[in-house]
Amino acid sequence: MTTAHGDTGLLAPGWAGSAAASATSDHAYLRALLDAEAALTRAQAALGLAPAEAATAVTEAAGAGALDVRLLAERARAGGNPVIPLVAELTKAVGEEYGSYVHRGATSQDIMDTATMLVAVRTLDLILADLGRTEQALARLAAEHRDTAMPGRTLTQHAVPTTFGLKVAGWRALVLDARDRIARVRGGLPVQLGGAAGTLAAFGAYGAGDPAALPVAYARELGLRAPDLPWHTLRTPVADLAGCLAFAAGALGKLAVDVLTLSRTEIAEVAEGSGGGSSAMPHKSNPVRSTLIASAARRAPQLAATLYGSLAAEDERPAGAWHAEWEPLRDLLRLAGGAARDAVELAEGLRVRPEAMRAHLDLTDGLIVSERLSAELAPLLGRARAKELLTRLASEGRPLAQAPELADADLDPTHYTGSAGALTDRALERR
Amino acid sequence: MTTAHGDTGLLAPGWAGSAAASATSDHAYLRALLDAEAALTRAQAALGLAPAEAATAVTEAAGAGALDVRLLAERARAGGNPVIPLVAELTKAVGEEYGSYVHRGATSQDIMDTATMLVAVRTLDLILADLGRTEQALARLAAEHRDTAMPGRTLTQHAVPTTFGLKVAGWRALVLDARDRIARVRGGLPVQLGGAAGTLAAFGAYGAGDPAALPVAYARELGLRAPDLPWHTLRTPVADLAGCLAFAAGALGKLAVDVLTLSRTEIAEVAEGSGGGSSAMPHKSNPVRSTLIASAARRAPQLAATLYGSLAAEDERPAGAWHAEWEPLRDLLRLAGGAARDAVELAEGLRVRPEAMRAHLDLTDGLIVSERLSAELAPLLGRARAKELLTRLASEGRPLAQAPELADADLDPTHYTGSAGALTDRALERR
Amino acid sequence: MTTAHGDTGLLAPGWAGSAAASATSDHAYLRALLDAEAALTRAQAALGLAPAEAATAVTEAAGAGALDVRLLAERARAGGNPVIPLVAELTKAVGEEYGSYVHRGATSQDIMDTATMLVAVRTLDLILADLGRTEQALARLAAEHRDTAMPGRTLTQHAVPTTFGLKVAGWRALVLDARDRIARVRGGLPVQLGGAAGTLAAFGAYGAGDPAALPVAYARELGLRAPDLPWHTLRTPVADLAGCLAFAAGALGKLAVDVLTLSRTEIAEVAEGSGGGSSAMPHKSNPVRSTLIASAARRAPQLAATLYGSLAAEDERPAGAWHAEWEPLRDLLRLAGGAARDAVELAEGLRVRPEAMRAHLDLTDGLIVSERLSAELAPLLGRARAKELLTRLASEGRPLAQAPELADADLDPTHYTGSAGALTDRALERR
Amino acid sequence: MTTAHGDTGLLAPGWAGSAAASATSDHAYLRALLDAEAALTRAQAALGLAPAEAATAVTEAAGAGALDVRLLAERARAGGNPVIPLVAELTKAVGEEYGSYVHRGATSQDIMDTATMLVAVRTLDLILADLGRTEQALARLAAEHRDTAMPGRTLTQHAVPTTFGLKVAGWRALVLDARDRIARVRGGLPVQLGGAAGTLAAFGAYGAGDPAALPVAYARELGLRAPDLPWHTLRTPVADLAGCLAFAAGALGKLAVDVLTLSRTEIAEVAEGSGGGSSAMPHKSNPVRSTLIASAARRAPQLAATLYGSLAAEDERPAGAWHAEWEPLRDLLRLAGGAARDAVELAEGLRVRPEAMRAHLDLTDGLIVSERLSAELAPLLGRARAKELLTRLASEGRPLAQAPELADADLDPTHYTGSAGALTDRALERR
Repeated sequence: MTTAHGDTGLLAPGWAGSAAASATSDHAYLRALLDAEAALTRAQAALGLAPAEAATAVTEAAGAGALDVRLLAERARAGGNPVIPLVAELTKAVGEEYGSYVHRGATSQDIMDTATMLVAVRTLDLILADLGRTEQALARLAAEHRDTAMPGRTLTQHAVPTTFGLKVAGWRALVLDARDRIARVRGGLPVQLGGAAGTLAAFGAYGAGDPAALPVAYARELGLRAPDLPWHTLRTPVADLAGCLAFAAGALGKLAVDVLTLSRTEIAEVAEGSGGGSSAMPHKSNPVRSTLIASAARRAPQLAATLYGSLAAEDERPAGAWHAEWEPLRDLLRLAGGAARDAVELAEGLRVRPEAMRAHLDLTDGLIVSERLSAELAPLLGRARAKELLTRLASEGRPLAQAPELADADLDPTHYTGSAGALTDRALERR
Repeated sequence: MTTAHGDTGLLAPGWAGSAAASATSDHAYLRALLDAEAALTRAQAALGLAPAEAATAVTEAAGAGALDVRLLAERARAGGNPVIPLVAELTKAVGEEYGSYVHRGATSQDIMDTATMLVAVRTLDLILADLGRTEQALARLAAEHRDTAMPGRTLTQHAVPTTFGLKVAGWRALVLDARDRIARVRGGLPVQLGGAAGTLAAFGAYGAGDPAALPVAYARELGLRAPDLPWHTLRTPVADLAGCLAFAAGALGKLAVDVLTLSRTEIAEVAEGSGGGSSAMPHKSNPVRSTLIASAARRAPQLAATLYGSLAAEDERPAGAWHAEWEPLRDLLRLAGGAARDAVELAEGLRVRPEAMRAHLDLTDGLIVSERLSAELAPLLGRARAKELLTRLASEGRPLAQAPELADADLDPTHYTGSAGALTDRALERR
Repeated sequence: MTTAHGDTGLLAPGWAGSAAASATSDHAYLRALLDAEAALTRAQAALGLAPAEAATAVTEAAGAGALDVRLLAERARAGGNPVIPLVAELTKAVGEEYGSYVHRGATSQDIMDTATMLVAVRTLDLILADLGRTEQALARLAAEHRDTAMPGRTLTQHAVPTTFGLKVAGWRALVLDARDRIARVRGGLPVQLGGAAGTLAAFGAYGAGDPAALPVAYARELGLRAPDLPWHTLRTPVADLAGCLAFAAGALGKLAVDVLTLSRTEIAEVAEGSGGGSSAMPHKSNPVRSTLIASAARRAPQLAATLYGSLAAEDERPAGAWHAEWEPLRDLLRLAGGAARDAVELAEGLRVRPEAMRAHLDLTDGLIVSERLSAELAPLLGRARAKELLTRLASEGRPLAQAPELADADLDPTHYTGSAGALTDRALERR
Repeated sequence: MTTAHGDTGLLAPGWAGSAAASATSDHAYLRALLDAEAALTRAQAALGLAPAEAATAVTEAAGAGALDVRLLAERARAGGNPVIPLVAELTKAVGEEYGSYVHRGATSQDIMDTATMLVAVRTLDLILADLGRTEQALARLAAEHRDTAMPGRTLTQHAVPTTFGLKVAGWRALVLDARDRIARVRGGLPVQLGGAAGTLAAFGAYGAGDPAALPVAYARELGLRAPDLPWHTLRTPVADLAGCLAFAAGALGKLAVDVLTLSRTEIAEVAEGSGGGSSAMPHKSNPVRSTLIASAARRAPQLAATLYGSLAAEDERPAGAWHAEWEPLRDLLRLAGGAARDAVELAEGLRVRPEAMRAHLDLTDGLIVSERLSAELAPLLGRARAKELLTRLASEGRPLAQAPELADADLDPTHYTGSAGALTDRALERR
């Protein structure tokens, strides 16, 4: 502790040590900033605006990795962003002959935004992979429990039976929704290149006959999309990221809150594969994966709100709205990335106790099928009298099976799961 | 004021009196709730599960409009949602013969969610129309000012020249982005039909051989999509609405904050078509449309956050998360609807003062083209010495035109707008 | 439904029909706006700046209540706030002789902000009364159940025993914290009076020798505090309201989520006094009060965020930040007001089932006292071996009472509630 | 970059390198966690519940600082918080004889919450110091410019004159409001000590006759307050921190957005002491301090919202709500800390250009005093005709000085600053 290293997630068991954490570290951002600078010089070389040797020199210097992140972070304070000191250092590293090709024609925001997109793409790919593993595990689980009846619960109370398969199929549907939204956004993430105010003017001043060709070449170097317009103050890509990441965190959050509920000591219909221990109680086995996912789902919406708020970005570069994006976007990538990691482990390891589900179906002594009885008695007694009868029986607290009026009724809760099986089957057809 | 009528937007000049306000009023929701009930009975009739006369009777009673919204609102308190008293009233209105077909097999959430989707569709169509008018006005404005040079501003300071056409083309691009996102979401909004816990079991109990056919018939009646799964706790449609509406408010917010800045007394490069007056100062002409749009853009993200937060909905109906959606979603529809209305007026009426823009280009005595000079002097002096020279000249405060070192330089800011024209042209090709 | 009345809370069972709803309706705001105008003229009369007859005339016209809220709401659109049309109407109503004394020297914001403070004070008083009733009911409940043992639950799992009394004492402590925060803020709410830009200049122009005396007289008329400075862009009162109302909603939210958990069918240690019914299932008795409170607790933080965000208000009146406050502040007052109403009913009606609590203490077959066993075995076996033993016994799934190693141990969970009783006693001393 | 060090603020020029950053680093939290553990053993020793040697041994081991933060962060994942592996490591470091006194009777949350309060107190003290320096600089500035007239601006337009002194006095009032709110919260921050579920039971099991004495002794060791009740799920201290930190960020945000506006190239009434440079434009001098403060003000409210949301914490330790507090609270401490650092520099270095202010007062050719003319002409012409006249003159675009109707009027804007001077004086009396 004598030398101050940086933060590595001590307050964030949800994402510490994850691949998403590595992909979004200060070092990963620095890597992406350097990648963005090197690609810019290469793109200029590809269009004949810079010598090939300059492209090589910048790429090599950018790859050497001798920069001190902490120093850059502190020097970023003067101008308000880390690209300014980075360009100074990189220029020095490239040396006299080709140094002037570093960052030529660009503005800090071009590099910062492009690097952010690189980091985003790299992290989204990790998230997509984990969502894929999650949905596969859930697909297996749903198929396996297609016909496992359990209480459906509404406003905390037993309502009518459902199946665990249908519940899991729902979790999976949300994971697929998240996957689709992330994949769509990921596919459209663009480089940013506009120069000081988005007119590409400096590239012309440096000799480009068709400056608009440059963003295309730049995008090609980095595997990103070439945008229609420089988007320095048209923050669609950032807002889209906010939306899909908040969605993913919330979608996994649904899975988590269900597992938390079903794991309660009194319910115990499911348990996490390996529960977490306690510092005080030897017997505790806590649903830690779900807890951490639920925690991410609580935080993500407000982080996304900050990003949506930054859409209202004045001028050709706003004084605050842009800067307010950086950390929240990283936080969202981390939270979604960590939650996806935990979701894999949760889905693959979940232990299910059908016998507990079955037992709970009897907790209300038949009332869990009162809807069915309502429907079946209505033609016989009329709707109002049927309801009266059932309300009276419910209030008496006796098992419905003992009520003479219901002597012929099928009170077996497992016979009243409706289309749960068919819905599960159909949901599992989605890929 | 003796009888308490309801709220009509006294605190909301941004949306009071708008079409979106009407489309989202308590009465509009009541209308949609009744539409949802009537369609449900019709769908059952279409599948032979109810007599055609029942469908007619329910549809007629639902259309009669004799219900008292305030009374329903207050009676909603007991069960926590307005559908419970609504069903009671509607059943009474339909009468003894067919009353039992009202709401048959459904749960409150089926009706509430479906009605919400109806309200959303109706309001989104209004918003789309206004975004369409806005983008058209902006397209005209951008074309007209394709070559109107003005200062590009970054972090509040003049940076390099740009054009008003490019700025407006950017506004339009955001409006089109909003339109695309809203249209995509609108096209996918589904009916909700699942019964008490999403298994469709009650429909079977009431005799449906293939209960899964019912949501399809229901969707057909209402012009909504039939969902893969009941989505009572899979809140993708609501989260998607949150995302596209927060996006729209933010996208219009960019336009608004730019107009606010450019309208400042000292800048006055644009003015709203008809400024707002003041209760104290006869001369004031305030940019009220922009102010109200900016206000909406400040509120929308946090409302969306609440909706994203409701994705983590436990069980088969959550105790709180669902209820927390209703007002914020309506607020978002209203804010986006009101902002779109104001954006039409703003875009169609905006007065532009190119002469002020031109004059401001000279405010920095040539420094606004310092980037260009940097680029042109670098080959002659080396990059570092070129920068030194310009930094020195900048600090001296003299007009650059008087510097002997720049005797041959083209200091005309209107010659340094880069690819602004070409970018504008390309952006306007987007439909 | 042919004539459009306004909204009365159809989407808001949490506050519809409450006293807080009435105190914050459009009509209540109009009432407060008129009160603010009338008091301003009276304050001027009190200082000899206006004839007493003018004060009477304005007060009478303001009290007559002939204004049409809907019309004002729609006319507010032009200038962006409702005070402008209100002043026009009120001036007309006062008539020629004294009309010029209406709103004299003030700006719209003076009236709007002051009226908002009036509405806030009136609503906070209602909330304080309901918090008072709530804490009293909770005090009785805590005292009654001082020694009712129940499982303490952490991360959803049984941890160690606690008492229901201590839990309720905790709820009450939060209610008292909310009360204290609200009372402190309420006591400091000021009138706003500054004129067009906060210099009080117009009052001088209208003849005031000491314009600074006017806010004091104004405050006296309205029973509010006289501020140190006009606070048109120093939004401390609004931010303070945001903080205390978000706190109150969250504090009651804790009570609600605990009741929701303890009400679950499988747990059933408590039940709301009168549960809510269902549109589909005759037997359901839902914890509706808790559900609605929990819903408010989900929404309040984001509304408060918008208000905290409006602190950054540029100039002498911001273009958007001020307007963004109006609806969210009202929403917060309503949500907190409705939640407090529900909390009274919840606290006064809560049914407690000590026998269920007692039964659940045995669910883990003794493991709920494993912490105690750890502590008692450690001196005998060493800490590590004690923990090993207990972990092994826990994993074996046998009742601990059957373990020969624990033959002498006191496994009665009701003997292991620690200082719960003493803590409850101490907490109940707080008034 | 080969070895991954942690994050040091590359994306956060607003707080990187600040004292608040150091006070809230992972290492600072680790320090506080160890302090909390050591103090717990000392408190037990002070009450005779542990040998003095144990206290010494734990304190020494905790001070040795040999723990690897990164490793702890990653091991925290299993149980969901860093205290579990920390206790294991610390116990090992203390050694066999006294190891069993480490963490004795406590739960992870006791240590985590107490450490968080320590970090908060340490950081709040830094913030308070910077707010103190800021308010002093602002007091000087306000006094110096007590009579410097400038345009008052509302909704972006010139309204009536004000003074720079009054504006600065307003900034200072907000800084003092922030200081007062932070100081109040800071003074009340408590230790947390309750054991597994808040009953203090384990301490009794370990021999404490009066377990309630232990939190008092614990608080004494750490210089924090002893709470009335364990607050593991009564999150008042965290919510209070959220409120005062969001307030501070917003209060400084007001200063920042005003400086940003007044710094605009066209306005240039103030400039930051040392503007930030640009990577592309040699002449740029950006208001970077204001930009970064404004950025913090945009983020803080949503972080606070997450914390207010965590008040609704179920059970005796919630599964997610507690975990969701850790990073946002740190973020708030950092953002407020960084903003306070920047505010000192901004306030102490601000350059004011009274001549620009004076010149702008003439921009509207006299209309800036139209309110005064209204007031003075009303008695002569009647209020309506006076307003008509001024509206007509305003629309004609001629300087008011040329209007024959106003021949006798005092059109000097510097004569119409009302009570600005007196208000400034009074505001400066506040300490």
